[in-house]
Amino acid sequence: MDLTTLAALVVAAGAAAGTGVLFQPGEWYRGLVKPAWTPPNRAFPIAWTVLYVLMVWAGYRIAQRPDAGPALALWAAQIALNAVWSPTFFGLHRPGIAFLQIALLWIAVAAMIAAFWARDIWSALLMAPYLVWISYAGALNLVIWDRNPSIAFGQRRP
Amino acid sequence: MDLTTLAALVVAAGAAAGTGVLFQPGEWYRGLVKPAWTPPNRAFPIAWTVLYVLMVWAGYRIAQRPDAGPALALWAAQIALNAVWSPTFFGLHRPGIAFLQIALLWIAVAAMIAAFWARDIWSALLMAPYLVWISYAGALNLVIWDRNPSIAFGQRRP
Repeated sequence: MDLTTLAALVVAAGAAAGTGVLFQPGEWYRGLVKPAWTPPNRAFPIAWTVLYVLMVWAGYRIAQRPDAGPALALWAAQIALNAVWSPTFFGLHRPGIAFLQIALLWIAVAAMIAAFWARDIWSALLMAPYLVWISYAGALNLVIWDRNPSIAFGQRRP
Repeated sequence: MDLTTLAALVVAAGAAAGTGVLFQPGEWYRGLVKPAWTPPNRAFPIAWTVLYVLMVWAGYRIAQRPDAGPALALWAAQIALNAVWSPTFFGLHRPGIAFLQIALLWIAVAAMIAAFWARDIWSALLMAPYLVWISYAGALNLVIWDRNPSIAFGQRRP
């Protein structure tokens, strides 16, 4: 058991998960025009808990391989992008910048899945739900941005 | 040249750097009681630009090695913790939680330097300024938290 790697990946996922706890949907989000297929708020922590566990699991498997470098660099890119979305969307109320972040996140996760696939197919499959969820969340972010033009380039809060 | 790894590390560092741009010192920070050794605001972007470049450089060197796994997992942990500090401190005005994050960041970077040292001493040395800066920033965060008790457990902004 490689405890350093496991602890490092758990801390990374925990830091990203923490922003979801610190920056939550509030009054502002409630007041937005949202599509009918918006999930209930309680779906987010459930989905993300599962996804963070899968991320650590897949990352840990890949880290044991001798050619882990590029795949783990992509893992680092996705966790950093993942960590900044909630502060940007729920904290700054900037759905445009948040959409850019989630679009980059989608690309990073897709590239990570490809890199995992070449090394360990099981790790790649573990990340499939993540890509599905980001596709859904990204579409939701885009539609919210589109339907709420007054906040489209929302002012930074003082 | 391993462009996938380089791009992934640049995107990760860019995501973290982006929170420093989105969440900046403002009125609130100006109004805090700060120690005499607080750096001028313009020091932060200069220091961080250098540190992000060094981070990518060292991470890239390590990623080329066959035993990169644990070292890059620690790199991922530090970039995630790095990305969440500015939103917590400057966005939420929560110096207590921000100090916890920077303390974890210090541990992650120290562990990363140890892991780098065992693989490539040059990469470890490249990260020395980062640890020095986090020690300084962490001390500053702690003293600000201590001297501004009214915001010690600051309310989340609505």
